[in-house]
Amino acid sequence: MAGAAGFTLADLAKALQARLEGDPARVVTGVATLDRATPAEISFVTHPRYRDAARASRAGAFLASDDVGDLPAPSLRCAAPQRALIELLRLFYPPPTVTPGVDPTAVVARGARVDPTAAIGPLTVVEDGATIGAGVRLHALVYVGQGAEIGAESVLYPHVTVRDGVRLGRRVIVHPGAVLGADGFSYVLDDGRHRKIPQVGRVVIEDDVEIGANAAVDRAMLGDTVIRRGTKVDNLVQIAHNCEVGEDCVIAAQVGIAGSSRIGRGVVLAGQVGVADHLTIGDGVTAAAQTGIHNDIEPGQTIWGTPARPAFQTKRIAVAESQLPELVRRVRALERAVDALTRARGSSTPADGDDGS
Amino acid sequence: MAGAAGFTLADLAKALQARLEGDPARVVTGVATLDRATPAEISFVTHPRYRDAARASRAGAFLASDDVGDLPAPSLRCAAPQRALIELLRLFYPPPTVTPGVDPTAVVARGARVDPTAAIGPLTVVEDGATIGAGVRLHALVYVGQGAEIGAESVLYPHVTVRDGVRLGRRVIVHPGAVLGADGFSYVLDDGRHRKIPQVGRVVIEDDVEIGANAAVDRAMLGDTVIRRGTKVDNLVQIAHNCEVGEDCVIAAQVGIAGSSRIGRGVVLAGQVGVADHLTIGDGVTAAAQTGIHNDIEPGQTIWGTPARPAFQTKRIAVAESQLPELVRRVRALERAVDALTRARGSSTPADGDDGS
Amino acid sequence: MAGAAGFTLADLAKALQARLEGDPARVVTGVATLDRATPAEISFVTHPRYRDAARASRAGAFLASDDVGDLPAPSLRCAAPQRALIELLRLFYPPPTVTPGVDPTAVVARGARVDPTAAIGPLTVVEDGATIGAGVRLHALVYVGQGAEIGAESVLYPHVTVRDGVRLGRRVIVHPGAVLGADGFSYVLDDGRHRKIPQVGRVVIEDDVEIGANAAVDRAMLGDTVIRRGTKVDNLVQIAHNCEVGEDCVIAAQVGIAGSSRIGRGVVLAGQVGVADHLTIGDGVTAAAQTGIHNDIEPGQTIWGTPARPAFQTKRIAVAESQLPELVRRVRALERAVDALTRARGSSTPADGDDGS
Repeated sequence: MAGAAGFTLADLAKALQARLEGDPARVVTGVATLDRATPAEISFVTHPRYRDAARASRAGAFLASDDVGDLPAPSLRCAAPQRALIELLRLFYPPPTVTPGVDPTAVVARGARVDPTAAIGPLTVVEDGATIGAGVRLHALVYVGQGAEIGAESVLYPHVTVRDGVRLGRRVIVHPGAVLGADGFSYVLDDGRHRKIPQVGRVVIEDDVEIGANAAVDRAMLGDTVIRRGTKVDNLVQIAHNCEVGEDCVIAAQVGIAGSSRIGRGVVLAGQVGVADHLTIGDGVTAAAQTGIHNDIEPGQTIWGTPARPAFQTKRIAVAESQLPELVRRVRALERAVDALTRARGSSTPADGDDGS
Repeated sequence: MAGAAGFTLADLAKALQARLEGDPARVVTGVATLDRATPAEISFVTHPRYRDAARASRAGAFLASDDVGDLPAPSLRCAAPQRALIELLRLFYPPPTVTPGVDPTAVVARGARVDPTAAIGPLTVVEDGATIGAGVRLHALVYVGQGAEIGAESVLYPHVTVRDGVRLGRRVIVHPGAVLGADGFSYVLDDGRHRKIPQVGRVVIEDDVEIGANAAVDRAMLGDTVIRRGTKVDNLVQIAHNCEVGEDCVIAAQVGIAGSSRIGRGVVLAGQVGVADHLTIGDGVTAAAQTGIHNDIEPGQTIWGTPARPAFQTKRIAVAESQLPELVRRVRALERAVDALTRARGSSTPADGDDGS
Repeated sequence: MAGAAGFTLADLAKALQARLEGDPARVVTGVATLDRATPAEISFVTHPRYRDAARASRAGAFLASDDVGDLPAPSLRCAAPQRALIELLRLFYPPPTVTPGVDPTAVVARGARVDPTAAIGPLTVVEDGATIGAGVRLHALVYVGQGAEIGAESVLYPHVTVRDGVRLGRRVIVHPGAVLGADGFSYVLDDGRHRKIPQVGRVVIEDDVEIGANAAVDRAMLGDTVIRRGTKVDNLVQIAHNCEVGEDCVIAAQVGIAGSSRIGRGVVLAGQVGVADHLTIGDGVTAAAQTGIHNDIEPGQTIWGTPARPAFQTKRIAVAESQLPELVRRVRALERAVDALTRARGSSTPADGDDGS
């Protein structure tokens, strides 16, 4: 799938604003990881820790950070190689050009407003009153409910569900099977039975958010469930009704956030983390995988474990836990020794002193 | 999306069977949470703990329980404000009226029986021998397999899959992307390879059950996987083959229940709980978030942790765990002190006594 | 759904290569579990531990292992009853015969190659350049992206998404709602914002793999995410970009495997296990439910807990944990006793010795 004829290193150096070490006329026809690259391909070394792998690589050229030492082939050097890598991948794998228009098999309600630059795929359904912005791409088999709004340049992959009234900002990406705006899980216990509370709020997804495959973001009971600008949500994540997730967060796969919790800005929740309801997680918090959060967390904390504790503390507890069975034995031995010492002293002071405390 | 002209408080008091404190002619045009309500809107105070928030609210009226004190605006008082809230929301957000009939783009097999009062949305597929009951609503892009039965008044949202032979009761709600009746995960190890056991059973969902977005309920190998009346299942839940979940349970998001387990009546499993296979969880059990259940649980227990223990015990362990690294140090100090005491006594009795035990 | 007229035990003995104890002319019309079987049905006893349940069963015949003792009805005996059960179920529930061809409502791009023996269901989308092999069955509402390849005899259930360039082997089964080839979750932090790295790799699923309902297998950034021959993946599993899962693994429901990890051959991950990124899990490893794996695991280990430890060790820690609150009290009592002993000795050596360490 790579670019047809390839690029010279001179071309690439210019495009990536990189400094070239080596032959500017050398041509590379693809990009590959260090272990797979052939002499016809360029690879990348984004960190000095990959230097040995780079030296063993057969790649014909490298994109590398300035602080990586000598390499066995011509190198494009730059200060931020990961950003340059994004450009490199775009050069070799240009995004598909999409033809605007509505596929004849799509079902678009007469009352929906579809920008003429949007592309609506086969068998996609857009309900009445929905708005599809400029340059939006709805893939095949997408569902957009009544009155929903899809902001400009957003991409919705197959089998996405956007229920009624949900609002997506610009450049939002929603991966296959994700569900935005299902009812919140909210009942009143009435004589032993659970009566459903109507879920009449919305979901608001701001600009540049990405939502993973088969993730679910529930609508609010009243008001909005909100995911703020730039936040990235991985596959199979659950975000419950009335939550608010701040800007630039990273919510990894299978995380669950219960109802009405507020996640600050720049928070990182690693895989399978659980957040209980009605909590406040401060800006910049990082939670390690599988952490179970049952209390508010102050900004800037790095936490781990269930119950969630500062990560260094959970690590120390984990180390001590390994010694726990042995510790039980040592305490038993101490008890015997103290008992013997006490008995050896006769029936005098120590035991009395103990009883009195 | 609120009711057009609004309601007088007199109207609302009558509809909700509430006692009005204040001007019966005041009109409210919407309902909103305490922090967002404007003077034109009514808000709600379902518990005395929200009294301070209520006093700070700009709401023009309140729905409140009798035991909430004075409020800064006219109040509709009642004993069960949460139930009244359901009615209030229905008044302002009446459920959509649905036109019966089969959308011309739906694909309904000739041998399917569709009640004339049912509504089948665009691009929905109903296979041969399926039965769609009275007043059922199948949204767009739903799949109903061969011989499946959808009970009266049930609602299936977009991208739901109901596989062949699955039976849903009345008033069942299935949220987008949920899968009912996929094959159970069941293999025979044969010479190092896993051979699939045919999964020829069904799924039976009783009346008034709700199934969350992207949840999965697997069909039985033989016989039925059953979810009994009134149980509510949240998003991304996994219920494996041959499980039986009792009446009026609450199964929160991302819970997983392994094969052939039986969950009693009125059980509450909080988010991300795991239940191993072939277990029996008694009636009325409550399991806190992320609990890992590996053994049968007696009725009425409140459990937490992995392995699951009575919650008060896991809490005490969690407290003690915090002290564990310190405890290791204290035991080391004790060992030194006892050693010194023993040595101070000479090579006499205590050590001997210890050796002998 | 069972076979119409039933089978004689003589027929079944021959088909299953079993030894018949009892009347060869007896007819059974269905197969059922021990507790549900009627005298007209055959049941199965795959292990001696079910002998009591078998003796209480009303079944008219049994399929049983040789080492199960006397049974109350005629028995088909064999050495590997679970394998024979697979055959028995296939006799009573023969797989549906599928008529090849493309449903007129399917949307198949002109540039797609569909084998004439394949069956494409209603409202299924096959994009340009995709290849659908011999005997493949795509159910209704399936999506197959550009250039994807579906190997012979594979079955894709409704609402499956196979994105562009994904390659499936032969006899692969993909359950409803599964997503193969969504973008990996991979960003560069650039001035506080997360910039998306293009995900231009593929997913490769080898022969005889099964993927559960609503599971997600992400495409590689570059190169391939690979699931090798014979591996079975349950519902709601997350397999991240650039992972490689070996042959004949069992990955239970709701497991999450983070980016670039390598899972060996014959590995068993029980429900809700989490595997961090860039790890190597050796061949034959078994991880108990909810285990959190943060380090490489040597081949053949059985592990449990978070952090993952050898299972016997986590079990011993769990037992010791139960005693932890009591242990804290015992250490406090010891400290008092030692303090009393030390004080009783006067202001002499032991305490000084302790202070000095």
